[in-house]
Amino acid sequence: MKKGPIIIVNYKTYTESTGKNAVELAKKAERVHKETGVYVGVAPQLAELAAVAKSVAIPVFAQHIDPIKPGGYTGHVLADSAKEAGAVGTLINHSERQLKLSDIEQIIRIAREHDMISVVCANNPSVSAAVAALEPNMIAIEPPELIGTGIPVSKAQPEVITGTIKLVREVNKKVTILCGAGISHGADVTAALKLGTQGVLVASGIVKAKDPYAIIREFADASKK
Amino acid sequence: MKKGPIIIVNYKTYTESTGKNAVELAKKAERVHKETGVYVGVAPQLAELAAVAKSVAIPVFAQHIDPIKPGGYTGHVLADSAKEAGAVGTLINHSERQLKLSDIEQIIRIAREHDMISVVCANNPSVSAAVAALEPNMIAIEPPELIGTGIPVSKAQPEVITGTIKLVREVNKKVTILCGAGISHGADVTAALKLGTQGVLVASGIVKAKDPYAIIREFADASKK
Amino acid sequence: MKKGPIIIVNYKTYTESTGKNAVELAKKAERVHKETGVYVGVAPQLAELAAVAKSVAIPVFAQHIDPIKPGGYTGHVLADSAKEAGAVGTLINHSERQLKLSDIEQIIRIAREHDMISVVCANNPSVSAAVAALEPNMIAIEPPELIGTGIPVSKAQPEVITGTIKLVREVNKKVTILCGAGISHGADVTAALKLGTQGVLVASGIVKAKDPYAIIREFADASKK
Amino acid sequence: MKKGPIIIVNYKTYTESTGKNAVELAKKAERVHKETGVYVGVAPQLAELAAVAKSVAIPVFAQHIDPIKPGGYTGHVLADSAKEAGAVGTLINHSERQLKLSDIEQIIRIAREHDMISVVCANNPSVSAAVAALEPNMIAIEPPELIGTGIPVSKAQPEVITGTIKLVREVNKKVTILCGAGISHGADVTAALKLGTQGVLVASGIVKAKDPYAIIREFADASKK
Repeated sequence: MKKGPIIIVNYKTYTESTGKNAVELAKKAERVHKETGVYVGVAPQLAELAAVAKSVAIPVFAQHIDPIKPGGYTGHVLADSAKEAGAVGTLINHSERQLKLSDIEQIIRIAREHDMISVVCANNPSVSAAVAALEPNMIAIEPPELIGTGIPVSKAQPEVITGTIKLVREVNKKVTILCGAGISHGADVTAALKLGTQGVLVASGIVKAKDPYAIIREFADASKK
Repeated sequence: MKKGPIIIVNYKTYTESTGKNAVELAKKAERVHKETGVYVGVAPQLAELAAVAKSVAIPVFAQHIDPIKPGGYTGHVLADSAKEAGAVGTLINHSERQLKLSDIEQIIRIAREHDMISVVCANNPSVSAAVAALEPNMIAIEPPELIGTGIPVSKAQPEVITGTIKLVREVNKKVTILCGAGISHGADVTAALKLGTQGVLVASGIVKAKDPYAIIREFADASKK
Repeated sequence: MKKGPIIIVNYKTYTESTGKNAVELAKKAERVHKETGVYVGVAPQLAELAAVAKSVAIPVFAQHIDPIKPGGYTGHVLADSAKEAGAVGTLINHSERQLKLSDIEQIIRIAREHDMISVVCANNPSVSAAVAALEPNMIAIEPPELIGTGIPVSKAQPEVITGTIKLVREVNKKVTILCGAGISHGADVTAALKLGTQGVLVASGIVKAKDPYAIIREFADASKK
Repeated sequence: MKKGPIIIVNYKTYTESTGKNAVELAKKAERVHKETGVYVGVAPQLAELAAVAKSVAIPVFAQHIDPIKPGGYTGHVLADSAKEAGAVGTLINHSERQLKLSDIEQIIRIAREHDMISVVCANNPSVSAAVAALEPNMIAIEPPELIGTGIPVSKAQPEVITGTIKLVREVNKKVTILCGAGISHGADVTAALKLGTQGVLVASGIVKAKDPYAIIREFADASKK
């Protein structure tokens, strides 16, 4: 399932991906997967996660889980709950939901125990290397200053990507490396893969697009070049 | 709907209230409501909220929402998302999920704008009075040191409850006042109401009970004494 | 000491108020106090607090203390430590250092127990009212969007100030009310006092001024109009 | 200065290390250094840091600095301020003051730019490896469950220390490795060094000892065995 380039769509908390829109968007992602064979995952909000997971046969991720075991933790996200709802993995430490280092380590361990895919976000090469030492399944490098701008990291800061790959590989040979921030065109995806990443984490570029299906499809096609 | 004594069951993140257990527990709460007419609400985890809300006709609450509007907030809880999933309200500032003062104020305002019931938790009379000034729908006073102990606040610290009521009423005549922490027997509920509260917020006393239905029913019966 | 208009200079962490600059700035504030009799307090960084307190005979405030008693709290600010260094009070919950509600309540109590003046910052009228219920010595209303802009709250948003005074007084008759954000001219101080506040909390308007003495003096003179 | 075994005394916020006690304790540490030649550093609270640094000729550390540059950051700790007060380095991410991963990375960089020694605390081997990738000057491994217990990590959990050294060295050959938690006797120090660490970070074992000088001396002597 994780072979080939990976596209993960982070729904964030946009209106376009909330409520009924969540399932609709997931179906578009699934359609592209069926048409192209490319790995397309989606990361909806928690309240829509179960509905999305029931509606599509592509990987569904939580946007966050907490470093907790079952117990008295009002308002937290329990891995078991996300998994039972259908999550196969979770984003961790997105720049909009940054975590303490020891919590990141614990969440990765909890994800592993629950056989969930851990996708840890990092804001620069050095932080990516630190994350790599924690042995998650995937690292997503996203320079925060480019998030949501439409200025693709793969073109504006290629050295951030190559620098990340270099530092990460010194620490961890196996982890999958994604990049994100500003990815809006197929060419940005192609550039990201050529720089050595294995996929992209995208949000507004797809979620807020006029025709999300067309963009996901464009990304998938570009990922095969 | 808010007339008469109120019982809100906080699911927290216990195994007994996670996944399929979430709906089963809600059905027990609903059964008690149907049998007794007493207001019984449930606050499941987010990933189970939609399933619970679809299965029962009693009020369903989120355990937390974030002080955000739709946008780029990965891993946050958007009011719109919780509401579309079926939440009629939300817990706020539980002692296990404490918030900055300005965030509490903003979440109460967001809840109001979304016509959602705000239930703000407070750890002592003075904090309760501060919360009262923010004009939520309900305040739940819960001394953290009694939470999960089975030692009922209504018996162990009645002065906390009466002190809260006194201070809160100087600031706010309308807000509904609940109490919680250690409530495990019908007599604890009766005591809480006699002290002047309008209901209880309970978690482990019900969620981890051998027979949750029996306890909810006991609470409901006791609330009518 | 608290009679008459109050000017508190928040040093923040500007270069102009760090290290040796901290004492120099305090001496300018003291000079204005001696010349005009107006209450001028300063809130330096912790590492300079003792040196400042030893050098001047005006009130010195910490910028923050933590809700802790003596014990194992690495990297925290203990009230006893700030007080022994010479602090007569502390800012609490500045918009750049926002706190959980229960921590604000606890810090105010700790300040009271240590006979330290509590100056709690609030971002809007509603939050100010909540703070007022906690009975600090002073509230400083500062709309965050005006902080550091040079656009004075007393002119740009007079309704925020009058609204704050109205809501606060419904809850608390005694608390001293300051305002801040964008205060840069004597006229802004005069306006703030005319609106009903008892003083101002200022930072960049003084700290980053070419001639801080001149501005403090201008503020002090304006406060007597 | 960093040759040979290292002892750093974390003052935390104990009464025994607050106010005037801070300088007295530092003088005892300095006396041991003079008598034995062993590196003994102290980490007082910020408000006493300048007084301590002026009184002794041993290395003085801050207990925390924030990931900020000079600017509008009320209640934060600016590296420049700590340094001007006499700090030659700083503790970072102590288990009582845990930080977001990206903040740890930024603070290490700020410390480097200010020529300050970064001592980053970590709670287990995996987290230590992540920290090692950020290239601080020192890592201090401290299992939180042993902190303040008097049960020495070097005896109770030697595998935590050897495991840390193994994982850290795969990532970083140069970083100095300390250990802490429960260190109370000379034998604990000897054990820690024999396991391969280069020193210890201690707090209550010294600060709350009846005769802190005697214990520091015992530690220093033990470190030479």
